[in-house]
Amino acid sequence: MWFAPIPENLPATVPFVGPEAQERRRGAPYTARIGANENGFGPSPRAIEAMAREAAEIWKYGDSDNHELRHALATHHGCDPDCIMVGEGIDALLGLTVRLMVAPGDVVITSDGAYPTFNYHVAGFGGDLVKLPYRDDREDLAALLDQAAERQARLVYFANPDNPMGSWHEGSEIAARLDQIPQGCLLILDEAYAEFAPDSALPVIDPADRRVIRMRTFSKAYGMAGARIGYAIGAPDLIAGFDRIRNHFGVNRIAQAGALAALKDAAWLEHIRQRVDAARARIGRIAAGNGLSALPSATNFVAIDCGRDGAFARAVLADLDRAGVFVRMPGVAPLDRCIRVSCAPEAELDAFAAALPQALKAAGRA
Amino acid sequence: MWFAPIPENLPATVPFVGPEAQERRRGAPYTARIGANENGFGPSPRAIEAMAREAAEIWKYGDSDNHELRHALATHHGCDPDCIMVGEGIDALLGLTVRLMVAPGDVVITSDGAYPTFNYHVAGFGGDLVKLPYRDDREDLAALLDQAAERQARLVYFANPDNPMGSWHEGSEIAARLDQIPQGCLLILDEAYAEFAPDSALPVIDPADRRVIRMRTFSKAYGMAGARIGYAIGAPDLIAGFDRIRNHFGVNRIAQAGALAALKDAAWLEHIRQRVDAARARIGRIAAGNGLSALPSATNFVAIDCGRDGAFARAVLADLDRAGVFVRMPGVAPLDRCIRVSCAPEAELDAFAAALPQALKAAGRA
Repeated sequence: MWFAPIPENLPATVPFVGPEAQERRRGAPYTARIGANENGFGPSPRAIEAMAREAAEIWKYGDSDNHELRHALATHHGCDPDCIMVGEGIDALLGLTVRLMVAPGDVVITSDGAYPTFNYHVAGFGGDLVKLPYRDDREDLAALLDQAAERQARLVYFANPDNPMGSWHEGSEIAARLDQIPQGCLLILDEAYAEFAPDSALPVIDPADRRVIRMRTFSKAYGMAGARIGYAIGAPDLIAGFDRIRNHFGVNRIAQAGALAALKDAAWLEHIRQRVDAARARIGRIAAGNGLSALPSATNFVAIDCGRDGAFARAVLADLDRAGVFVRMPGVAPLDRCIRVSCAPEAELDAFAAALPQALKAAGRA
Repeated sequence: MWFAPIPENLPATVPFVGPEAQERRRGAPYTARIGANENGFGPSPRAIEAMAREAAEIWKYGDSDNHELRHALATHHGCDPDCIMVGEGIDALLGLTVRLMVAPGDVVITSDGAYPTFNYHVAGFGGDLVKLPYRDDREDLAALLDQAAERQARLVYFANPDNPMGSWHEGSEIAARLDQIPQGCLLILDEAYAEFAPDSALPVIDPADRRVIRMRTFSKAYGMAGARIGYAIGAPDLIAGFDRIRNHFGVNRIAQAGALAALKDAAWLEHIRQRVDAARARIGRIAAGNGLSALPSATNFVAIDCGRDGAFARAVLADLDRAGVFVRMPGVAPLDRCIRVSCAPEAELDAFAAALPQALKAAGRA
């Protein structure tokens, strides 16, 4: 045996193949990069300026406490700075949360078709992952928590709004279910898309509530996916636990400066929300114009129901790819009847609109 | 119990307190930031320009394969791209290497006083760390490998050149000892400071040799500590192991662009080497002018022997800190008779030169 037992038995896998890797495979760049829910409207010009300025200071390690950003986030959320941990994007924070909570063989609950990177981390630390079906294209929080109690789970993953379907729950529904979280179990509430959702979709939860950890990011509404910076909100003793295992100097100094500037530019965030609203509506019209229905979305992407099975949707996706349009789709049935299109500037949606009729035809629709 | 067993039993610790955190504690910024072996001469202007330019593209995730940089590094080192893994700095790569190799209770060998962040990762994954003494202010490779054989160790950590002492071994000595690496054990050769060392200090090792993994970084000679980007060189099947557990989209996109530009600017690297040589010499003169001796160094820092015990050196350090000069020192005897001063531009060394006599006096030297 070469590796330690857990990694030795892991497959060599990657949760997502990135668009650059796909461009290398297909031998040409994409015309439209609308598959990874990146925010093509871009970050605040002030954030770009702050990042460009910080480039000359990159010889210094970043502040290991992320002090300034953490305090600004605490003010933003009206909570204590001790309730906030900044990390290298939600992906890294999910990995650390799994490592903090899950011993080999411990049960973790998620939805079948939900965020694959979370599943990757659970496998990576030897957790026993239980997947429950979506219900009406939404993650089924009641069922997830029932199963958590039955299986004595350590973690439940729940995204609101949901990726890949774009669906959501009302915040009041979520808050009302917190008492069903079993003792010794932590609910991960992934709110990567929170800034795109209606206010009523965001539950009011005491940050000091030890049963829940919320995940937020600068990758989506703030348009900084490549910066790798996000944060967790939770009880101080849970948040302090990250200090036992995190890579203390892991956050990029330019990302720290950019996130701080982005957070302060509320007007840009509002501008982004309006652009995303308009793009969501346009994706809906493109779908309808092709006889397809777009699912309601509280995110910066739209799941388009292609009206048949996964094989059909995969064929549509393959032809869009051939035409230079990068789109992704859910991995499992029945979600995989859909393709998932990210909100983006007009030119990219033009390319999608132009390619879709042919893709549906190529996939075999009469 | 709240956390999983391993993190539950870890102390809330941090391998280093960062300079920003120390500035907050002392209530004033430092005049000289010469404690973390950062490179105050800065990165290549071309790297700064590339990073500033990439800021506007930060809405895109970075390339999960680090394809372009990995290929450029392969050319640079004359090896196959499959022998290279790019990651979020050596700190992150060390954590992943420990996770890949060490199961709870497995033995890991290092030197007492060597890189604390490595020890932090070993503890973080439940490894059993064995520390051997330095010998004549150098890590003792022969003893480390003997102990590895005796204890059936999974990993041996060995830095060349060494941090915190700045000492080094000849590459030929290291190469001659590779056959002593026991079966099932991996030698981590941390070469963070390689670009500052004489060529003869760098061993010739076949990148495909499965017994060794080398660590390199853009944090030191390339002046990009805050970017969090480094790489490992090793056998393809070992390197591929990282794909089982790494955060695939973890490297900052701006860091990727900056590292690529920095690697291509060989003239700037040569310029940095010359500046560092001059600064090393000046630190030596400052030490001598105060009746202290500077240890020989193959790095961008100098260990100054304060001539007494650790308590004395700590008192010197405390007074330098009071005077606004950020310096660090080794953590254990007998190394802790020294303080460790990073090479830096003239103004910062001026501040150090001005503060040192008073610091020695404050520490109790007649």
